[in-house]
Amino acid sequence: MNFVGSHILSVDQFSRSDIARIFETADTMLVYAERQRITRILEGAILSNMFFEPSTRTRVSFGSAFNLLGGEVRETTEVRASSLTKGESLEDTARVLSGYSDVIVMRHPQEGSVAEFAAASRVPVINGGDGSNEHPSQALLDLYTIRKEIRTRGAGVDGLRIALVGDLKYGRAVHSLCKLLALYDNIHFSLVAPPGLSAPPAVVSLLEAKGHKVTIHHELERGIHHVDIVYVTRTQEERFASQDEADRYRGLFQLNQAVYTANCEPNTVIMHPLPRDSRSEAQELASDLDANPNLAIFRQADNGVLVRMALFALVLDVADRVDEFSKPVPWHSHR
Amino acid sequence: MNFVGSHILSVDQFSRSDIARIFETADTMLVYAERQRITRILEGAILSNMFFEPSTRTRVSFGSAFNLLGGEVRETTEVRASSLTKGESLEDTARVLSGYSDVIVMRHPQEGSVAEFAAASRVPVINGGDGSNEHPSQALLDLYTIRKEIRTRGAGVDGLRIALVGDLKYGRAVHSLCKLLALYDNIHFSLVAPPGLSAPPAVVSLLEAKGHKVTIHHELERGIHHVDIVYVTRTQEERFASQDEADRYRGLFQLNQAVYTANCEPNTVIMHPLPRDSRSEAQELASDLDANPNLAIFRQADNGVLVRMALFALVLDVADRVDEFSKPVPWHSHR
Amino acid sequence: MNFVGSHILSVDQFSRSDIARIFETADTMLVYAERQRITRILEGAILSNMFFEPSTRTRVSFGSAFNLLGGEVRETTEVRASSLTKGESLEDTARVLSGYSDVIVMRHPQEGSVAEFAAASRVPVINGGDGSNEHPSQALLDLYTIRKEIRTRGAGVDGLRIALVGDLKYGRAVHSLCKLLALYDNIHFSLVAPPGLSAPPAVVSLLEAKGHKVTIHHELERGIHHVDIVYVTRTQEERFASQDEADRYRGLFQLNQAVYTANCEPNTVIMHPLPRDSRSEAQELASDLDANPNLAIFRQADNGVLVRMALFALVLDVADRVDEFSKPVPWHSHR
Repeated sequence: MNFVGSHILSVDQFSRSDIARIFETADTMLVYAERQRITRILEGAILSNMFFEPSTRTRVSFGSAFNLLGGEVRETTEVRASSLTKGESLEDTARVLSGYSDVIVMRHPQEGSVAEFAAASRVPVINGGDGSNEHPSQALLDLYTIRKEIRTRGAGVDGLRIALVGDLKYGRAVHSLCKLLALYDNIHFSLVAPPGLSAPPAVVSLLEAKGHKVTIHHELERGIHHVDIVYVTRTQEERFASQDEADRYRGLFQLNQAVYTANCEPNTVIMHPLPRDSRSEAQELASDLDANPNLAIFRQADNGVLVRMALFALVLDVADRVDEFSKPVPWHSHR
Repeated sequence: MNFVGSHILSVDQFSRSDIARIFETADTMLVYAERQRITRILEGAILSNMFFEPSTRTRVSFGSAFNLLGGEVRETTEVRASSLTKGESLEDTARVLSGYSDVIVMRHPQEGSVAEFAAASRVPVINGGDGSNEHPSQALLDLYTIRKEIRTRGAGVDGLRIALVGDLKYGRAVHSLCKLLALYDNIHFSLVAPPGLSAPPAVVSLLEAKGHKVTIHHELERGIHHVDIVYVTRTQEERFASQDEADRYRGLFQLNQAVYTANCEPNTVIMHPLPRDSRSEAQELASDLDANPNLAIFRQADNGVLVRMALFALVLDVADRVDEFSKPVPWHSHR
Repeated sequence: MNFVGSHILSVDQFSRSDIARIFETADTMLVYAERQRITRILEGAILSNMFFEPSTRTRVSFGSAFNLLGGEVRETTEVRASSLTKGESLEDTARVLSGYSDVIVMRHPQEGSVAEFAAASRVPVINGGDGSNEHPSQALLDLYTIRKEIRTRGAGVDGLRIALVGDLKYGRAVHSLCKLLALYDNIHFSLVAPPGLSAPPAVVSLLEAKGHKVTIHHELERGIHHVDIVYVTRTQEERFASQDEADRYRGLFQLNQAVYTANCEPNTVIMHPLPRDSRSEAQELASDLDANPNLAIFRQADNGVLVRMALFALVLDVADRVDEFSKPVPWHSHR
């Protein structure tokens, strides 16, 4: 795809080479995220960060990514989009608000709303999550993390062995990650979910149609044998019809250090889109794993900033000039 | 008036030459709003954008205008001002908060509150709307749009023919616009409202006292004959005693392309302060007008940024030096 | 203490020489707060301003302080921290969010929560108030104000005579200020509270153990004789078990100009952490004092910005280089 001026709405937009371009760009952002240098390439640019559904992590990650490139952020966090609109169509909102900024990130509880908004926007729109539909930057940062983690052992994404664990029915992040991984070759997917939360048939078919190997498990232990990555998700409680139904699944699969040691390979990488539920009854990823160097969940969150910087840089066509506007960092940084 | 260091509280402050000064300044801002250049003139300056009533458009428009001049924005969007104050007087709030910023924009549901706040502020305060009282930047951007739209046909504001359509009783925007237009010569006002929502007698008297021609209509069709501008407003539903009363008026006047073609001149400009109500029962401005090049409603919203930049520049006395701090734009822009 | 990279969690961290270092640094910030110059030392740096409890003044003061040093602010003002976390531990939240910023200010209704958060953060955390526990920057700005006010008459903090008036039981600000003052020599504390809202015995013991003189009063008038400073607090109504109990104390002590003239010395300085309750039934500090030049309450609020700038500068190790990144101010400023 041609990134310049484009909307980023869905993982379906990306070819394998597009992903490579995003990831190469994300790699160049590390020096700024780690505060070895600052860059002012987007000095004067304005991001409209529009969150019609609370999502502190995603909102702050996008906002910080834009600040790290030197830009300013105008934020809207109205929970009730209705109070914004007074009957205004999403198209009108887009036409007006796109006059106030250079790029827009939008999160909205309703599926398809971000694409509808983007169609009327005069500036590029990045989907920050539209209901259970898409959240492309999450899928990209997940794949970027996979690539980075296994690269240190000389491996690539082709031939990857990955276990996807937990709520595979409602987990938007998992569905999008599967779509991205499907672009690569010869991947072994171990889909580990309780009966009732299995991955949708469409996801399984897609993977098989592309020649990947898919194994279905209903037990945690056997599902995480012989994999490079264990990707654990929380139960998407808010998608269930009743709290009762949600409660039924909470705590069913708990990955802790003992289970890891007994079933995983010594360097199996542990991922999770966060937040992980640390209440005693949930614990899908126990805190005794925090000392495990293969726990990549916080590196994964950090990578989100790099990937989002890359998306901004590509869409605004500055990816190749970021260094030109760089300066030393005069303050003390731990990072 | 002397703009430097002044509060902007009411359209009553402005003479015709003040308005000319604001509009000339707004014209010079286009190059920045269109991203041909950026300017850093207000680098280091802080706007306190205080919204005690939700108004996403106005809030983001002011914030972006300040960012476009290079300044920073600190924002407060508490809906319940009471939680802010714990019994604190508006004067105390003003004394404290004016120590944190260089200029303040304030919106507040209570009439007169912004003036009261400004009286105790140590920095200039711009009224972003105080209840049904004043919203001077809206009136200015409306007039700026009128001037710009009819200028392309070689006309000026003197001698203008304008139809004001809809809720002329509660429409704050319309009342303020009338006050500004009254400063010009020989305008023909066509006031088009359903019985019960007519313009207040004080507004009509003012216009007539200044020698303008006023015609009253209760039907849309005849009211929009022979005018340069049709300014349509939404019904201010929140001002009615009951929803029932509000419902009675919704959808009464609907301007669509067929009505336009049958009654307007070929180049009659259509304006609206936005948001327009696009629900099927309202439709005061039908979406089939979106293809009509005379529909100026989104240009009008864009002009709001220029006018607000101008107000900041004049109040902070940088209007003549903006270009001196300008730089090229390194990113790709659609605008 | 070594400020560089440190968390600022409690007034207990500071020695007398630490305080001197903070105040000397705060003094150097005046030129920027008064807009004689701007500085860009923190250009590109990001503050995460996280307020899980509303506190507009503190939030904007910290945010503006960071902007005045040239940095950017990403803000979170979720009232229900639960909506942020979905069962996430404070540690996980800290690990993730500290990847998005260079320094964090956090306010949280729960005692100890900020320290818990800081323990897992990868960047310095400044406590912006954790319930009834600590609010160190408030205590510092209070002491800074005392020092600055009495310095003009050639006096220092040693030997100070201060009356602390009002709710001395729940007033967090007063407790922390006592701890800081206890580090100095030979102070006379006049503790003026209604029976039932007296200072906790632990506070009194601490002061006496350090050799300070403590007098207890239950009447306003006699308690404010012969003092350099009268520090009045509002009743912390939100800490009482019932509104009835809170009502009992409201308006009990009212300092007005007549009481001041009759009981204070001619240059006794009046302080208050703000907001003062200006409702007729409260009036702990009457508005007829506003013309009294010894009323220091707004200077006190202004000093908060200087002290917070100093904390940022020390923690990020730029205190000695701020001027190096300074520039003239091109806009008009009243200040």
